[in-house]
Amino acid sequence: MDYSKYFSADVPSFLRSPVREIFRKVDLSAICSFAGGYPAAVTFPLADIPGLAEKVLGRYGTKALQYGATQGVPELREVIAKRYGVPVSQVQITTSSQQGIDVCSRVFLDPGDVVLAENPVYLGALQSFRAYRARVQEISAVSARHSEHASCHSERSEESPVKFIYVIPDFNNPSGKTMTLQERQEIVRIARELDCLIVEDSPYRELRYSGEPVTTIRELAPERTLQLGSFSKIFAPGFRLGWIIGPEELLEQIYICKQCLDLCPPVFDQYLAAEFMGSGMLDANLQKSIAEYRRRRDLMVSLLEKYMPAGVSWTDPEGGLFLWLTLPPALDTVALYDKALSAGVAYVAGSFFYTDGSHRNTMRLNFSFVDEAKMEPGIKLLAALVREAAAAADATADATADAAAAAAEGGR
Amino acid sequence: MDYSKYFSADVPSFLRSPVREIFRKVDLSAICSFAGGYPAAVTFPLADIPGLAEKVLGRYGTKALQYGATQGVPELREVIAKRYGVPVSQVQITTSSQQGIDVCSRVFLDPGDVVLAENPVYLGALQSFRAYRARVQEISAVSARHSEHASCHSERSEESPVKFIYVIPDFNNPSGKTMTLQERQEIVRIARELDCLIVEDSPYRELRYSGEPVTTIRELAPERTLQLGSFSKIFAPGFRLGWIIGPEELLEQIYICKQCLDLCPPVFDQYLAAEFMGSGMLDANLQKSIAEYRRRRDLMVSLLEKYMPAGVSWTDPEGGLFLWLTLPPALDTVALYDKALSAGVAYVAGSFFYTDGSHRNTMRLNFSFVDEAKMEPGIKLLAALVREAAAAADATADATADAAAAAAEGGR
Repeated sequence: MDYSKYFSADVPSFLRSPVREIFRKVDLSAICSFAGGYPAAVTFPLADIPGLAEKVLGRYGTKALQYGATQGVPELREVIAKRYGVPVSQVQITTSSQQGIDVCSRVFLDPGDVVLAENPVYLGALQSFRAYRARVQEISAVSARHSEHASCHSERSEESPVKFIYVIPDFNNPSGKTMTLQERQEIVRIARELDCLIVEDSPYRELRYSGEPVTTIRELAPERTLQLGSFSKIFAPGFRLGWIIGPEELLEQIYICKQCLDLCPPVFDQYLAAEFMGSGMLDANLQKSIAEYRRRRDLMVSLLEKYMPAGVSWTDPEGGLFLWLTLPPALDTVALYDKALSAGVAYVAGSFFYTDGSHRNTMRLNFSFVDEAKMEPGIKLLAALVREAAAAADATADATADAAAAAAEGGR
Repeated sequence: MDYSKYFSADVPSFLRSPVREIFRKVDLSAICSFAGGYPAAVTFPLADIPGLAEKVLGRYGTKALQYGATQGVPELREVIAKRYGVPVSQVQITTSSQQGIDVCSRVFLDPGDVVLAENPVYLGALQSFRAYRARVQEISAVSARHSEHASCHSERSEESPVKFIYVIPDFNNPSGKTMTLQERQEIVRIARELDCLIVEDSPYRELRYSGEPVTTIRELAPERTLQLGSFSKIFAPGFRLGWIIGPEELLEQIYICKQCLDLCPPVFDQYLAAEFMGSGMLDANLQKSIAEYRRRRDLMVSLLEKYMPAGVSWTDPEGGLFLWLTLPPALDTVALYDKALSAGVAYVAGSFFYTDGSHRNTMRLNFSFVDEAKMEPGIKLLAALVREAAAAADATADATADAAAAAAEGGR
């Protein structure tokens, strides 16, 4: 039976996540994977869960198992509001911060609309924007520190309004970069100039290992910013909980939309999260997670320094879960991938995160999930592959140069 | 700040749920509410949850707190596949069966497309179809038993393809009706004739209190049916878990779409559900729930018989959570609603479930959620309001008749 004719016109724009496809096909536990974006299992408060569950069931009884409010249970909205210094009315709970991205796409985007984003951009966001047939264009404010002048990309046509700017200002996925205050102010300036909204995706903000926190974009422009938060990296991703902080007028439409999406977020999990955050357990656990991740980041950076050949560079992130690696321009991480997988090491090719599929000499490396014991052999293996590919590229370049020289001689 | 210009062209089609709006404004615990669609809290396996949680955490450890597969955890897909006699590859877990409806809308519907549905239709489905700007048209197969001939509604234009037929064949929400085998065969015949899909929404099927199960539409037409299941009425709605059973080619696109929606369903909750269903605890609990609900249904029917005036009729459902009440044609349940709320009783006006807002003399009554002790005073109160409204309508009719007679006399 041919099912193609039943599908919506959006379906051809659906983009498979190359990261999730890797998980689907390869048993990552058997190899050294720097591919995923998973938090370290040791950071999960496993031992606390039975006690939390008991407390929640004792306090709320069957209410914890019943349907709940579409906005989220009041107890969770209250602890989030308190933690981030906003009124409860400006907090909407989401069933994961991916749902936060999707509901923003659903409420704001029409086919042909433009989203301005950093390049490279988080894949889950790119998937969501594309699935609504929006066009994702690069915002160059972030690269301003290199070019010394910040300006909005000028390819937009008048018929395609920019609905919002999408950014991960803290410890970007995939690049690992953190925006300076000046860059954030520049994002706000552009948003005000274009009169568009800002979606500030903030899943890693609490995971800072060095340096000082920078003011959030929401604080700079609360009137036009929807800030997405997540419990996945500060509690556990298995609970699928996130939140949106934003102006009430925008949350009102998101609330109505969310009725269609899933009626309400998981109720039992919300009470667990409220208890975990409200009781101070979250902060205690966060301190341990930060120490753990700082050690892993430092280990990966030192291993890259030890093993990677000249011509390879990487970001040294102040937080989050990712490093961004740039190889010599002649190398191709997409082409290298199958070889790496066979050798027993996985990464995500950087070009997947570029709206135009460029930057094929880059890759994203995750340092949070892989066992520390596997990290050294993994990086060593990856470095050997890079070295080998670089040598092959040099040989090709030499052969090309020889051929060119021969051709030049023949022409003389 | 005026936010209206940022919204998608879909937003004006977003429909607030009148049911959820009632919950938002009124403390239902203070009154007698027949309005919601909540299952009875006494049916939740509250005492089993700590043991289930312990088992899950002991068996899966941090895996239960980590991200999971987009299709759902294999353990849950397997128990569902086994229970319903389908291959695991034909099972996709959803974050609530409302998400099942939404993802089907997202994957199949474009603005202007037609969904054929029973009238009255489940509000959450109507909200979702309308939010994608699809047109919902009545399928008359269901009313065939009255008209003695079944045919597809003929208002469709050639430019608006029917993408799917949406039905709740077992214990319909809101009508409480169950389709006969002939009606189900007729749905399949129409779907094959129009060459469209069928979304068989099946959240209540396991809650049968009398009569014999009828073959599902999925069994009649597996090649074109997506059957939606839910844990909300057989486990607990607070976990937000459902599933879709359908052809692999359709589930494949739903899987890609679901990556954007929330990456994966709640993992911890899925393991709890898998253990609950797989261990036989679900079936034991279901027997208790069925006995409980049967008693409540019988009580409500007997109370309606006892208190309702002549001219009021109702369905006597074989299962599910709802009764459908029809008042004399002159009465208006929308107009009556505020009075009822002030008097201390809530229901949902039937016209909210009609695509054209008609049938203002009907209402949906839920018999699962309200305390049994409140049921008699609640129905008594409602009957008094109906009686009063009927008397007022009769008086108006008499006055109109008198005026007509007077006018006739005057004209003589």
